[in-house]
Amino acid sequence: LKKLFTSSFRLGILGGGQLGKMLTLAAAPWDIHVSCLDSSSDAPASTVCHSFVLGDLKNYDDVLKFGEALDIITIESDHANVEALKELKARGKIVHPDPEQLKIVQDKGSQRQFYADKNFPSPRFELFENKEAIQIAVKKSVWSFPFVVKTRSAGYDGKGVFMMDAMEDIEALPEASFVAEEKVKIVKELSVVAARNGKGEVVCYQTVELFPYPDAHLVDYLICPADLSEKITKEASDLGRKLIEAFQIQGLLAVELFLDENQKLWINECSPRPHNSGHHTIEGAWTSQYEQHLRGICNLPLGSPKMKMPSAMLNLLGEANASGPVRYEGLVDCLAMEGVKVHIYGKKETKAYRKMGHMTILGDDVNRLKEMIHEIKTKVKVTI
Amino acid sequence: LKKLFTSSFRLGILGGGQLGKMLTLAAAPWDIHVSCLDSSSDAPASTVCHSFVLGDLKNYDDVLKFGEALDIITIESDHANVEALKELKARGKIVHPDPEQLKIVQDKGSQRQFYADKNFPSPRFELFENKEAIQIAVKKSVWSFPFVVKTRSAGYDGKGVFMMDAMEDIEALPEASFVAEEKVKIVKELSVVAARNGKGEVVCYQTVELFPYPDAHLVDYLICPADLSEKITKEASDLGRKLIEAFQIQGLLAVELFLDENQKLWINECSPRPHNSGHHTIEGAWTSQYEQHLRGICNLPLGSPKMKMPSAMLNLLGEANASGPVRYEGLVDCLAMEGVKVHIYGKKETKAYRKMGHMTILGDDVNRLKEMIHEIKTKVKVTI
Repeated sequence: LKKLFTSSFRLGILGGGQLGKMLTLAAAPWDIHVSCLDSSSDAPASTVCHSFVLGDLKNYDDVLKFGEALDIITIESDHANVEALKELKARGKIVHPDPEQLKIVQDKGSQRQFYADKNFPSPRFELFENKEAIQIAVKKSVWSFPFVVKTRSAGYDGKGVFMMDAMEDIEALPEASFVAEEKVKIVKELSVVAARNGKGEVVCYQTVELFPYPDAHLVDYLICPADLSEKITKEASDLGRKLIEAFQIQGLLAVELFLDENQKLWINECSPRPHNSGHHTIEGAWTSQYEQHLRGICNLPLGSPKMKMPSAMLNLLGEANASGPVRYEGLVDCLAMEGVKVHIYGKKETKAYRKMGHMTILGDDVNRLKEMIHEIKTKVKVTI
Repeated sequence: LKKLFTSSFRLGILGGGQLGKMLTLAAAPWDIHVSCLDSSSDAPASTVCHSFVLGDLKNYDDVLKFGEALDIITIESDHANVEALKELKARGKIVHPDPEQLKIVQDKGSQRQFYADKNFPSPRFELFENKEAIQIAVKKSVWSFPFVVKTRSAGYDGKGVFMMDAMEDIEALPEASFVAEEKVKIVKELSVVAARNGKGEVVCYQTVELFPYPDAHLVDYLICPADLSEKITKEASDLGRKLIEAFQIQGLLAVELFLDENQKLWINECSPRPHNSGHHTIEGAWTSQYEQHLRGICNLPLGSPKMKMPSAMLNLLGEANASGPVRYEGLVDCLAMEGVKVHIYGKKETKAYRKMGHMTILGDDVNRLKEMIHEIKTKVKVTI
């Protein structure tokens, strides 16, 4: 990394969505020139990156060609082509997360297997070739309702996650291979963002509490810090630390956790990249998750993950029944509220529950942050 | 400003230096597409702005042509062509600062006249057509050594400022028109960054103390908050508030002040734009000066200027005897220090005292910040 801070250091990001945009903005103060690969010519990162390449991050040739001109390659989407990343690594490029680790994460079945092998608290699971195999397992009483079924690959933002409460739910599943999981009786949803560099240094951000959107498997808003006992807080960050060490990941690993009614933590899933549950660190932490990811992948000393103050983050999701060119209502009203920071990603089309932007809310009092979230929700509308 | 938050709102910045770069980065979260005009094709903002136009911000035609395609035009340099800005305003473009106000600021003589007319505390001054006229005034004892002479236009970063201690200092002045000023016995150099929107709302950032570089009229580092009595602190922000109101400026006004040995404040000079003395607000304040400038010029509610914590800012200046392609030493060591944020502007060539980057240092204790500044100065070198 001798080229760092020379104006000729080239970082490539597979994906040009909001995470790519914010990572690009974090790279700018270090004079890192960013290239993004995305299949949409008006992807959010396209307006701020140094060079934008149109292409499919799942396509071997597109990824290989994209990476060849770069010094270091990372991802903003878990679905990048692993084989192309392996080839780039073989050709001497720096690639983080490591393609082998990414491959495990891409498959929700292998993820569960990894947790089981390493003794992480993870619900009982079983892999199925197709939905018929699940039906047989239920008939044999190997699995009984309720339980959760996930497609092994290509899921995100709740897509590919299905609740099984009766035989007809299995019937309604698409054609895919699945992982079935025991349903955790969730009391709280949490997230820990961990970071690690090549020297093995690890830091974890304060655990946040995620509040899901009522009708979708999506985060509505988060509060940092989560309202937890000291013991659970420590257990959660210990899990984050141990998991990033188990994976030997360089860069970020966001770990989503469930807390059950017995105060036990379970790993839901993880992503080796900047994450929706870390947006608030831009304004709230001494080091943003985006700068931290850069520090990790460039093998620099990690930055302090300390929070400057309590923070909340509200996702601005497209209205359920609106699809088309986006229009935002109420943003100026929100800018008048002390401590509200507006992030609009620049996606031109909205659709149901699409992540179109977010707001960070800074404040000294967590209860006040929650009130502000509810106030903002009465003002803001992402519609057409 | 109906186009704000629509992906089609176009902001133009006259100048593509570090201030333009950081203003561009602040516009990105609001999906504002930024165009920059600069005469250097590798200007710092060129790597992050949406469109970059090569041209001279002092040239009437270049500025007019640049502005025609935009919704709102602002500056990052005080030397933009005022006549072109007037014409753009006449054609219905939103231009901030107002060209008439910018014209006053551009001429250090008119600036002094403005302060005198409005009863701001400003040293006694006199305008001179040339250096011969100054010689005559000294011979007539209208002016006596020591005093300060500034070229009326085109000065920045201490350029165009001369100390008059003897007749030969006058002799050595260049051919120009000047303003002579009484020399203030400076105990502290301070800066207040004020912001105002079109509704007349005004906020001021906490007063900072500027520590000049020993051999140049340049800021070495700053500490926020300044070490001042409550009374002086209030007087300083009152001056900032009154001055931005007197100018009726929309956007930012950075006001540099001197505190003399009698604890009296004097206005040194001002700039109606983001300013070197506000860099620390990116990480240190609830609202950065760059976002605040956008709020001001777009006539949005102003953001909170509160500080999250004490902060310091160290300019990374080119070494006095190094000129050529830049090389930075010691940056990685600094990244290992808690609370140090590195900003490299991306200028390819360094020269004596050129502003190549800066560091912001966050911390809870002002004395610790000063120690860290001195520690960083032993590590970092901007050289060739």
